[in-house]
Amino acid sequence: MSTNSTGPAADDRMERGLETIRRIERAERPGVLDGFSDVAPGFGEIIVGYAFGDICSRPGLETPTRQLVTVAALTTLGNAAPQLSFHVRGARNVGCTRQDIVETVMHLCPYAGFPATVEALKVVAAVFEAEPEQAGDETTGSAAADDSYERGLQMLKALDGLTAAEPAGSQGSVTDLARCLIEFALGDISGRGGLDARTREIVSIAACTALGTPLRPRLETHLRALLEAGGTEEEAIETVLQMAVYAGIPTAVNGLNAVRDVYRTAARQPA
Amino acid sequence: MSTNSTGPAADDRMERGLETIRRIERAERPGVLDGFSDVAPGFGEIIVGYAFGDICSRPGLETPTRQLVTVAALTTLGNAAPQLSFHVRGARNVGCTRQDIVETVMHLCPYAGFPATVEALKVVAAVFEAEPEQAGDETTGSAAADDSYERGLQMLKALDGLTAAEPAGSQGSVTDLARCLIEFALGDISGRGGLDARTREIVSIAACTALGTPLRPRLETHLRALLEAGGTEEEAIETVLQMAVYAGIPTAVNGLNAVRDVYRTAARQPA
Amino acid sequence: MSTNSTGPAADDRMERGLETIRRIERAERPGVLDGFSDVAPGFGEIIVGYAFGDICSRPGLETPTRQLVTVAALTTLGNAAPQLSFHVRGARNVGCTRQDIVETVMHLCPYAGFPATVEALKVVAAVFEAEPEQAGDETTGSAAADDSYERGLQMLKALDGLTAAEPAGSQGSVTDLARCLIEFALGDISGRGGLDARTREIVSIAACTALGTPLRPRLETHLRALLEAGGTEEEAIETVLQMAVYAGIPTAVNGLNAVRDVYRTAARQPA
Repeated sequence: MSTNSTGPAADDRMERGLETIRRIERAERPGVLDGFSDVAPGFGEIIVGYAFGDICSRPGLETPTRQLVTVAALTTLGNAAPQLSFHVRGARNVGCTRQDIVETVMHLCPYAGFPATVEALKVVAAVFEAEPEQAGDETTGSAAADDSYERGLQMLKALDGLTAAEPAGSQGSVTDLARCLIEFALGDISGRGGLDARTREIVSIAACTALGTPLRPRLETHLRALLEAGGTEEEAIETVLQMAVYAGIPTAVNGLNAVRDVYRTAARQPA
Repeated sequence: MSTNSTGPAADDRMERGLETIRRIERAERPGVLDGFSDVAPGFGEIIVGYAFGDICSRPGLETPTRQLVTVAALTTLGNAAPQLSFHVRGARNVGCTRQDIVETVMHLCPYAGFPATVEALKVVAAVFEAEPEQAGDETTGSAAADDSYERGLQMLKALDGLTAAEPAGSQGSVTDLARCLIEFALGDISGRGGLDARTREIVSIAACTALGTPLRPRLETHLRALLEAGGTEEEAIETVLQMAVYAGIPTAVNGLNAVRDVYRTAARQPA
Repeated sequence: MSTNSTGPAADDRMERGLETIRRIERAERPGVLDGFSDVAPGFGEIIVGYAFGDICSRPGLETPTRQLVTVAALTTLGNAAPQLSFHVRGARNVGCTRQDIVETVMHLCPYAGFPATVEALKVVAAVFEAEPEQAGDETTGSAAADDSYERGLQMLKALDGLTAAEPAGSQGSVTDLARCLIEFALGDISGRGGLDARTREIVSIAACTALGTPLRPRLETHLRALLEAGGTEEEAIETVLQMAVYAGIPTAVNGLNAVRDVYRTAARQPA
């Protein structure tokens, strides 16, 4: 597998990839190495070497958080239920609680819409149902609560730009939308317990990157909000980079451009 | 469920949501309230309160039309066949004819492409097959007709911009595309009977909003065409707003920006 | 089917469409003509007349290449597995090797991401498994090779723009991304044997068009690279036009705008 004609890290990437996927899959030999060996020889090795070795083994994002980022990408893209199932199991294997996973999926509802979220929750439910009962790991996200509005209102200042969308003659439709945003996206969803603010921002960054340039303004908002929630630029970069695997390299590059613009701007301002 | 710490309409939104989903589902207790109670407590209430209470119960769009808007969104997004099935049944329950539904799905073919349309029609066919026979509700959309071209030509003036796309050295490829557009999109599809012009514009607006900012020019065309077909600004706004549920809030906000730009411009011109 | 009120080519389009789909499906009467006759009368005729007659029968792209373009579109869109299955069988029927098909799907991985690619490969594998054994048609794509990096490096000059994406304080993340691009997209993927450079550019153009305006810079790169690989402007235009069927007319129009801009610019420069 190695000679001096290989890139500097050719061996390492396979080794790192194998180590990472073994932890996610809890298997000595990852199934992906054999799954495509008939039809597409070498593709399993590419998945291990590139997706898991080059990208998903990078430092800068804790393993459980990285796995939630993957769950976020697959929820948002909605194009690969079996892989979502694999990575939900993987999230459990690397230490995510049921609540981490459920709250991640639900958190994406305002970005990805209900159809994508509901289908993802069905996959999550099927994974949970198939796993052995474990004490102390009940999903305990707060239900839609009485104080949606107030909790939402407290979080509204973290967002921007929506009220600029008032169309002429809209008879308050955008004000209505702003209320929905407050009650639903911030109150019902972001105001739920069960996922810390930093992780919420990280999975938001993943979803907004995966959804592409039309979501650029929201991506910028969450890149800023991550720092306010105690996250780091490195975490943002790693989250965006990981989208290269799931949403494609050009989409990740577009996300990195947003990272550069937001953090360069931030760096220029006096602290 | 209520105290004075809730938002002004917390009770109302649940009540309104329940009433709306009961009509769509024809069930006293909507299945969604129980479907996720194990894995994601509170999510069913969010769907009822937000999706059905805040958004889908709003005035300004008649219930059957609103249900066709939902069918349009799910056809276009193509990410949730079970939910499309639910809402096709719902469309029937609130009074849409088979023809309304089939014509809505077929009408989206030029926007969403054949793969999305064909998969959606399979879902529609399965729903129709499962329902009891009803007299007088045969699908009667006209077949691909002899006069596609002429019918299309009459409608062409409602569209704009395509002929500006002629590449250098294209040897008339864009002229060919214009012919395809005339024959197919306008003649075969939009020229079909079975769906009034206003509804065609509304479902076009839904699809173009859901497909995101790359479709912005087409969205603007249909926002203008809706008014010409006797629709209202309010109907346009409600259609775009409803995409917040299906395609996500940022996508709906992008659509509302188009609404504002188009109708503000229109308002400025002398009538 | 014909009178003088029809468009100039109404008969021809149905005839051409039938001839094309018969070759793809190897059936005298295409299934699509009957598949929707109950629920959506006329829709099968539209598919034959428009999709297969107007678009997919056009000259300027050889039939097997055109079929690979369809496979590329359905892989990228990821919204219609049964249709991908149909068109993989169709690709085989018009003379594509297993290797052509597998390499096409794998080639799209950097654009469409792994989830879409992996799901498509599952469909491909199922089609191959169902076909009778044929001598001399083993998939022989080279495995992830030792010289990924060097092969990739040689191809890097065909791409542009990525290194401009370096965010502030990124500690070399974008350099890392550039390395991934070299090793993975260019070395592992584009550097694989089994698909000639011209066809690789054509399926890249299909994928980048289908993925919409966020991929515009990559689309432009591949439009230029096609000419360098010995392809023609006509092949580019036909590939983009075909996306009207799969990704919708507005998306194809956006692609045609890129074609115009790139080739008009090229035409202006002294050869």
